[in-house]
Amino acid sequence: MTESKNSGPDDDKGPASSARGRSRRPVTLREVASAAGVSVSTVSLVINEKKNARIGAETRQRVQAAIRELGYRPNAMAKNLVEGNSRFIGLVADAIATTPFAGQIIHGAQDEAWKHGYVLLVANTEADDDAEAESISMMLEHKVRGILYSTWYHRLVEVPAALTETDFVLVNCFAAEPGPRAVVPDEVAGGRAAAELLLRQGHRRIAFVNTTTPSPAREGRLRGYQDALTAAGIAFDPALVLDAQPDQGGGYEITDAVLAQQVTGVCCHNDRVAMGLYDGLRDRGQRVPEDLAVVGFDNQEVIAAHLRPALSTVALPHYELGVVGMRVLLGLDQVGDLGRIALDCPPVERDSIATPPAATPIKR
Amino acid sequence: MTESKNSGPDDDKGPASSARGRSRRPVTLREVASAAGVSVSTVSLVINEKKNARIGAETRQRVQAAIRELGYRPNAMAKNLVEGNSRFIGLVADAIATTPFAGQIIHGAQDEAWKHGYVLLVANTEADDDAEAESISMMLEHKVRGILYSTWYHRLVEVPAALTETDFVLVNCFAAEPGPRAVVPDEVAGGRAAAELLLRQGHRRIAFVNTTTPSPAREGRLRGYQDALTAAGIAFDPALVLDAQPDQGGGYEITDAVLAQQVTGVCCHNDRVAMGLYDGLRDRGQRVPEDLAVVGFDNQEVIAAHLRPALSTVALPHYELGVVGMRVLLGLDQVGDLGRIALDCPPVERDSIATPPAATPIKR
Repeated sequence: MTESKNSGPDDDKGPASSARGRSRRPVTLREVASAAGVSVSTVSLVINEKKNARIGAETRQRVQAAIRELGYRPNAMAKNLVEGNSRFIGLVADAIATTPFAGQIIHGAQDEAWKHGYVLLVANTEADDDAEAESISMMLEHKVRGILYSTWYHRLVEVPAALTETDFVLVNCFAAEPGPRAVVPDEVAGGRAAAELLLRQGHRRIAFVNTTTPSPAREGRLRGYQDALTAAGIAFDPALVLDAQPDQGGGYEITDAVLAQQVTGVCCHNDRVAMGLYDGLRDRGQRVPEDLAVVGFDNQEVIAAHLRPALSTVALPHYELGVVGMRVLLGLDQVGDLGRIALDCPPVERDSIATPPAATPIKR
Repeated sequence: MTESKNSGPDDDKGPASSARGRSRRPVTLREVASAAGVSVSTVSLVINEKKNARIGAETRQRVQAAIRELGYRPNAMAKNLVEGNSRFIGLVADAIATTPFAGQIIHGAQDEAWKHGYVLLVANTEADDDAEAESISMMLEHKVRGILYSTWYHRLVEVPAALTETDFVLVNCFAAEPGPRAVVPDEVAGGRAAAELLLRQGHRRIAFVNTTTPSPAREGRLRGYQDALTAAGIAFDPALVLDAQPDQGGGYEITDAVLAQQVTGVCCHNDRVAMGLYDGLRDRGQRVPEDLAVVGFDNQEVIAAHLRPALSTVALPHYELGVVGMRVLLGLDQVGDLGRIALDCPPVERDSIATPPAATPIKR
């Protein structure tokens, strides 16, 4: 501890601190009292906004001016204890180090929490059970107002028993049993949006590269694709649904199977699969979008926006999942009878879809 | 608030809660006291580990057993207040929603913090000044033990004045003025490692695609590349250093300029540039690694591990930056006279380097 203090800035009048006239030592209640010419207990009453404390408006203003001038920071923890509730909300995430998705959920949850005067306690578990138990325990000990329990991909979860000790909302996941409220992406609408990107340009023979992993995305998006075909008056052909590992390798491997179906367009399970398919197509002398129109899913920016041509895709609403999860926890949004809110997956149009040969685009 | 309570699990005996025999209502101090057959104040003394409290070993054990059995959770905030210091450490990050890098820093910082009994208060600013000021203010009000101030790419920062009110360490960034301690990647060693990946396979004419953005990475990695050439007895040729925008578009655009230099290998500023260069080379009928060996930087998994062929690159030590930043803040690691710790950027060998025609690989 001593060393770390010593190697900090050794001159209080350095550019950073002098700029706002602050010293490194925190300002005390006593100093505020002395500057305002009142007692310490008066300052304390003003800070804790005691409604029935008889303090004149003028005195209150003088104390508040002294607080501002000296840069006094009230002790939020003491305040929480006095008020009997904390301004903390916990957020458990399972993969902030390996995907950008958890980061977007956190960003949304934080923005919404701050708007309502709450602070996020974020814990990353990287899917480790011990880390998860420790996270939730830590949050409960800090008397959080509630917990958002999130996963990086939409899936069924077993609700940790400790979660039920507080208010909680599942974000990007859901429970088998009824009860726990959840905010999830609308996979069916997402699958429909993906297929519609192609249908609207006149494609009628469209392959669907699904994931091999059982998940709401696997079932829901396929159903959405089928719905879109039906709405366009196209008969569903099961031969056009192909399974692939949900990454670049899977997309590359499935290339021949896609080409064998003589389709003019393909919906990929995610942007990574589309990236692998791009490579497979190029290796076979096929051009995107002239020879095959390709649609991704996720809108994983670093891939989708930067493939050549840039990939048309459907966005997963991670930021919004964080926002709405927080709003449900705070009682600002309601989940309705289903216990779940399903959020839209909006289409993102880029350059990987052309009108197929001899097709007339369908008007929206 | 009422609605949110009502829409939670409405049966305390549901599968999740009964599984571990917990009710949703928090256990009170009084219940622990009653179960252990002692007074509330005795329980309080045991929980707060008062050293000079005269409590027999047997009583202490009985209280601890009751705490475990009932699942009592001590109020961490009250404990913090009693001890006069908090177990919080703040971490300010500027881009957890847009890159995977901040997530890795957070992961490392959290692992190390938990090891020492501290909890992270994470705030994401997405480079917004107001959000940053609000984050730091929130952390100070929670009486954090200190703050890690991090950036998603290695750069010079202006230290926010409020930071100087507590102990802080800069992570992946540094200040112009002397004083603030910093933990950063060793860019020079990273550039050397990148060039050495090629030199070791016998490459001697190696292009260096630098970023157009002034930064420690731009200067440091180039110096490392030059050092590596010098050590291998190769004269530095400034014509082989080319500037490109640090993304896929930049890599694609620079393809002809790289090919014009008749090099056998190229070091790219990052994996995104390498991805764009792959596309440019393919469009010109050039193969990686047979016609040109390519090295990236960052080891951004979703790109580097999944390009075809998989990209050899140099990893940025984001997780380690978080760990070491935390250790410096806790006084466990020292920054030395320079006020900075520079961490290694380890090479990651994949499949994008072949031995050039007519070259004999150099022995390590």
